[in-house]
Amino acid sequence: MTVLIKGGAVVNADRTFVADVLCSDGKIVEIGDAIDAPSGAPVVDAGGQYVMPGGIDPHTHMQLPFMGTVASEDFESGTAAALAGGTTMIIDFVIPNPQQNIMEAYRTWREWAEKSVADYTFHVAITWWDDSVHEDMGTLVREHGVNSFKHFMAYKGAIMADDEVLVNSFSRAIELGAIVTVHAENGELVYRLQKALFETGMTGPEAHPLSRPPECEGEAANRAIRIAEVLKVPLYIVHNSCRQSLEAITRARNEGQRVFGEVLAGHLLIDDSVYRHPDFDVAAAHVMSPPFRSKEHQDALWRGLQSGNLQTTATDHCCFCADQKAVAGTTSVSFRTARVASKTAWKCSGTMASARAG
Amino acid sequence: MTVLIKGGAVVNADRTFVADVLCSDGKIVEIGDAIDAPSGAPVVDAGGQYVMPGGIDPHTHMQLPFMGTVASEDFESGTAAALAGGTTMIIDFVIPNPQQNIMEAYRTWREWAEKSVADYTFHVAITWWDDSVHEDMGTLVREHGVNSFKHFMAYKGAIMADDEVLVNSFSRAIELGAIVTVHAENGELVYRLQKALFETGMTGPEAHPLSRPPECEGEAANRAIRIAEVLKVPLYIVHNSCRQSLEAITRARNEGQRVFGEVLAGHLLIDDSVYRHPDFDVAAAHVMSPPFRSKEHQDALWRGLQSGNLQTTATDHCCFCADQKAVAGTTSVSFRTARVASKTAWKCSGTMASARAG
Amino acid sequence: MTVLIKGGAVVNADRTFVADVLCSDGKIVEIGDAIDAPSGAPVVDAGGQYVMPGGIDPHTHMQLPFMGTVASEDFESGTAAALAGGTTMIIDFVIPNPQQNIMEAYRTWREWAEKSVADYTFHVAITWWDDSVHEDMGTLVREHGVNSFKHFMAYKGAIMADDEVLVNSFSRAIELGAIVTVHAENGELVYRLQKALFETGMTGPEAHPLSRPPECEGEAANRAIRIAEVLKVPLYIVHNSCRQSLEAITRARNEGQRVFGEVLAGHLLIDDSVYRHPDFDVAAAHVMSPPFRSKEHQDALWRGLQSGNLQTTATDHCCFCADQKAVAGTTSVSFRTARVASKTAWKCSGTMASARAG
Amino acid sequence: MTVLIKGGAVVNADRTFVADVLCSDGKIVEIGDAIDAPSGAPVVDAGGQYVMPGGIDPHTHMQLPFMGTVASEDFESGTAAALAGGTTMIIDFVIPNPQQNIMEAYRTWREWAEKSVADYTFHVAITWWDDSVHEDMGTLVREHGVNSFKHFMAYKGAIMADDEVLVNSFSRAIELGAIVTVHAENGELVYRLQKALFETGMTGPEAHPLSRPPECEGEAANRAIRIAEVLKVPLYIVHNSCRQSLEAITRARNEGQRVFGEVLAGHLLIDDSVYRHPDFDVAAAHVMSPPFRSKEHQDALWRGLQSGNLQTTATDHCCFCADQKAVAGTTSVSFRTARVASKTAWKCSGTMASARAG
Repeated sequence: MTVLIKGGAVVNADRTFVADVLCSDGKIVEIGDAIDAPSGAPVVDAGGQYVMPGGIDPHTHMQLPFMGTVASEDFESGTAAALAGGTTMIIDFVIPNPQQNIMEAYRTWREWAEKSVADYTFHVAITWWDDSVHEDMGTLVREHGVNSFKHFMAYKGAIMADDEVLVNSFSRAIELGAIVTVHAENGELVYRLQKALFETGMTGPEAHPLSRPPECEGEAANRAIRIAEVLKVPLYIVHNSCRQSLEAITRARNEGQRVFGEVLAGHLLIDDSVYRHPDFDVAAAHVMSPPFRSKEHQDALWRGLQSGNLQTTATDHCCFCADQKAVAGTTSVSFRTARVASKTAWKCSGTMASARAG
Repeated sequence: MTVLIKGGAVVNADRTFVADVLCSDGKIVEIGDAIDAPSGAPVVDAGGQYVMPGGIDPHTHMQLPFMGTVASEDFESGTAAALAGGTTMIIDFVIPNPQQNIMEAYRTWREWAEKSVADYTFHVAITWWDDSVHEDMGTLVREHGVNSFKHFMAYKGAIMADDEVLVNSFSRAIELGAIVTVHAENGELVYRLQKALFETGMTGPEAHPLSRPPECEGEAANRAIRIAEVLKVPLYIVHNSCRQSLEAITRARNEGQRVFGEVLAGHLLIDDSVYRHPDFDVAAAHVMSPPFRSKEHQDALWRGLQSGNLQTTATDHCCFCADQKAVAGTTSVSFRTARVASKTAWKCSGTMASARAG
Repeated sequence: MTVLIKGGAVVNADRTFVADVLCSDGKIVEIGDAIDAPSGAPVVDAGGQYVMPGGIDPHTHMQLPFMGTVASEDFESGTAAALAGGTTMIIDFVIPNPQQNIMEAYRTWREWAEKSVADYTFHVAITWWDDSVHEDMGTLVREHGVNSFKHFMAYKGAIMADDEVLVNSFSRAIELGAIVTVHAENGELVYRLQKALFETGMTGPEAHPLSRPPECEGEAANRAIRIAEVLKVPLYIVHNSCRQSLEAITRARNEGQRVFGEVLAGHLLIDDSVYRHPDFDVAAAHVMSPPFRSKEHQDALWRGLQSGNLQTTATDHCCFCADQKAVAGTTSVSFRTARVASKTAWKCSGTMASARAG
Repeated sequence: MTVLIKGGAVVNADRTFVADVLCSDGKIVEIGDAIDAPSGAPVVDAGGQYVMPGGIDPHTHMQLPFMGTVASEDFESGTAAALAGGTTMIIDFVIPNPQQNIMEAYRTWREWAEKSVADYTFHVAITWWDDSVHEDMGTLVREHGVNSFKHFMAYKGAIMADDEVLVNSFSRAIELGAIVTVHAENGELVYRLQKALFETGMTGPEAHPLSRPPECEGEAANRAIRIAEVLKVPLYIVHNSCRQSLEAITRARNEGQRVFGEVLAGHLLIDDSVYRHPDFDVAAAHVMSPPFRSKEHQDALWRGLQSGNLQTTATDHCCFCADQKAVAGTTSVSFRTARVASKTAWKCSGTMASARAG
């Protein structure tokens, strides 16, 4: 089959320019100024639009070990699915356990990713701090091309980075010319709210958004932004889900600070009514962190993209089957909401649930 | 002489790409990926910078008739001076008198501009309203390539566009796919303040900024923005000089509205202490509208450029000799500040004063 | 019947203090520190609340002549109804026709109000300008105790005050130590939108909110605020109905400006879904200006009261019977939406419609 | 001597009312509606002003043990000095060492305060957390009338309260109906900046403001506000010194949150140029935390008082003699700036320096 895409702005790695693109049998066969459509070939008017050879998903978690199980989508099936949808590259995350050697974790993830069928690279999470971490960040940047370090401000008692880790890691990143990224939620507040909800007996999916209100996210976003401002490091905030974090980003950008914001497809399209779904499994399947928010926040996120205060969209792709979720629930020390904390079923097909972690 | 400019992002009309540029004897002789510098030629490292073949000044007034005299720089001398500084194109303004036929004014300016030695085009000012103006806007867009209409919200009793003109013209512009621009100052307030200052005997240059405080500009900027929002037309605000108008633009852009802001070199670099200069002529030479502001506003303007809430810089080039200013003073009906209202000496050399009008 | 109100903060004209209030047969019989409730008398715990002997409605229009008819509630019936609900004082409006002598209008309204059965006073509207208005404002303040002047920024072609009137009147008010108030809607924009809607054939109540969007109100509020800022006069904005005008007030108050905001009971409780009511008469009965807004704006208004950025609530009480509305529709020169422009039925009972004008 | 104060609003503990006040020989001898001035007695026109029998200083530190020395002003001399200036009550701080029993600290401070010659009460600082602290907070509120708990977000390694302490203490406070207060500076950032400055050799007073930039304060203020918002506890932020923390307070108050802000006389009147004073002793004497800021911040603080977004002024009175400062410098483990960290000479007379700690 042959298709002519006319008049779009062709975005290549090296330059952007207005051109026509002729595709035949799934391949680009010609790029030029005024290509005539072959007889019978459909013509797409791309005037005023970008034409890209493929998309980049800057936020995925293939075969992630998490709460006693492992994300069911591995690097092969996951990148194959991505390609099928036009995503030709993913940026996944190396997430060392606290006290785990960073290089060791990095080598593990690199090995897992060998079987990928699309392009890939990694953000590396900084989940603890000592001199070896300081050293390894340098090795990763200088010898392995890593240029982005991730920090989880939530998940107290697990991978949470407190202010001390943030300040040390951000300081090291700017020395190395790397960018820092954060999952912005105040982990102490979340922990407190989870405990309080558990004590009242609210342990179902309906408790999940109550345990992680927008104010927790906005606070953490603002904190990361201000620490980055003082330490003069560029910052990228993943999966902004609410007005509060968007406002923190907007304030900083209006002052000229280099802060960037990502938004997930899910937060743009799904609202928090899912947590009150009469079918427990449907409600539980949507548990992820940050949670889905009310319509007010969805409107704000779209406005954020429109204004340019948010720059990227991602999926946070992280699949768990329904039975895996049950396992996570069983091994969870605290309560049923925690069981699926930061997990959500994305779309279910057969016995397989496509889920995402924050 | 030969110069090699290495590693900049070359901006052409059709595309932007990273390349080396070799210039010899004032001409670009090669653009390529890895050009070797000829022996002895200086090399400029342009990494991370734009490399452009010339600049565009979006705001000039060559040979403008104003208050009984005419700006001394004509289209030939003005564009020659521009070229000498690397500005290869200007956008000047057609400014019909109230009740004057728009097409007639347009033809007059086009004729004046024939002698230009650089590229030029025109914004066309809408200074009054009737059905012929409505008709002529269409002719200008469809037959003459005009795509920008200017409105002066100040200069009561002369070229001021009140809300009725703004609403009519903005509505017409969006029908035609044109952008609208405004000089944003509340003309009624300025008129009132001028009169009040005159009555107190303050008629020197020191009264000029007092007669046009930042609040007047911020109010008008916000009004134009909101009218444009309701009528869904993109808006460009010329010569923003203060925090207040920047904030109005920033608020609108954060909501996703298509509003653009220009800032003049003068407002970025000169502050209002000039109006208290002990030498009357120096102080008077800086009278222009909007006036120069305090340091606080300069800081805000730089931050506006840094954040991207302001997009363009311009000169508002509009020259008047010192003796022309005297004539304007003599013929002015109201008072000495009005005499040089919206004029300023930019740089003086000999008996010639380079001045700018808002 | 006897009631004891305990522990409230008693607000009198001269002081506020915590006390108990004993009421018997509709009268206050004792105010004291620790009154014992008579046997069997109900006790109201007013701790943390204000206890007031009566309310003030700062915005009413009794027997207002408007669009060929007269508001059906006169000063006697209106104040009697007010008293029945605990409102012991109203502030009504003297509204001169353009060119009408202000003192003459004032005397007319004063005479109408003689039959009031509750306390009353007047704001006086400034709807046009010449030297006599300047003079009469002084007379009103110095000899008649008037301390508040109202300006309608909407109603083009009728009582609209343009920037020239605003600037003159605000300047005069500060000389006299009076406060200024505005009905904030951009009249030119409303006029344009009404015309455009009429041309598309939308002439029913559903067109009313489209002809007066929140941006029109926010723009006018901001304009009045900035003019008041420059002229240094305190400002009171009546019937704020939307986020936009609240934000304009909030910005100004945060900078320390003396701006005050009123909100109507109707805007707090009724949303714009009423204009899409299947029963035309119900929809039409809610036409008033500014119109009812979406829930987002209601939330903002409540938050405005909570934060103290809005200070007063009022009714804008202005009754028209259904048949009066028909007359107004018939005599209206423009179109059916205009017919009931700035009128709304508040609650209907029998042939009587309780309506309000902006 | 006799003085008549006419027409002010007399503020008493129980009520506020307009009245005249007659003072004779330093005592109030009459309060009434229209007192005639005794022959020859001066009359003060207090129209539009408050008339108060004495002031309250909500922030003092008498005889505070700090960094190896003790504040030189004790409860007797300090309250005597306060009275001499019209301050009739102070609110001091009980500051337990980490791990110290709260009740024990409370009893110690109460005992010290016995010799006060003016009214006093205490905020109690929460500097660490375990079940006994939870218990003691209850005892303090229920049995000792304490209703305010203070948290230092700075001073890492000493009395700093991290998020865990804040969340626990704020949660407990709202159970008890108490208010929480914070010293808002990000202690981790301050620690990092101090270390970095020390390594560059900047150890003098000029390094002090660089080690505690406004962004550190604004971040901490925002964090405390958002934690308080989620936990629904009213919050009072002490000694706001910069635009950033004022803006955080303003945003919260505009949304209706119960947040209150204090400002010190010093921050309103002294700017950061003192740290570059050529006389080392003068510069060092001004070291306190948060530090004095640039003029921009002073302007913001005054605007904060004007707008009502800041509610109280205080002194943070905390005296150290010059030789005490030397001791603190000697015993300091880190570097010379730390030596006087959070101390400042307030006014020096002879060998005595009046200083304040944050």
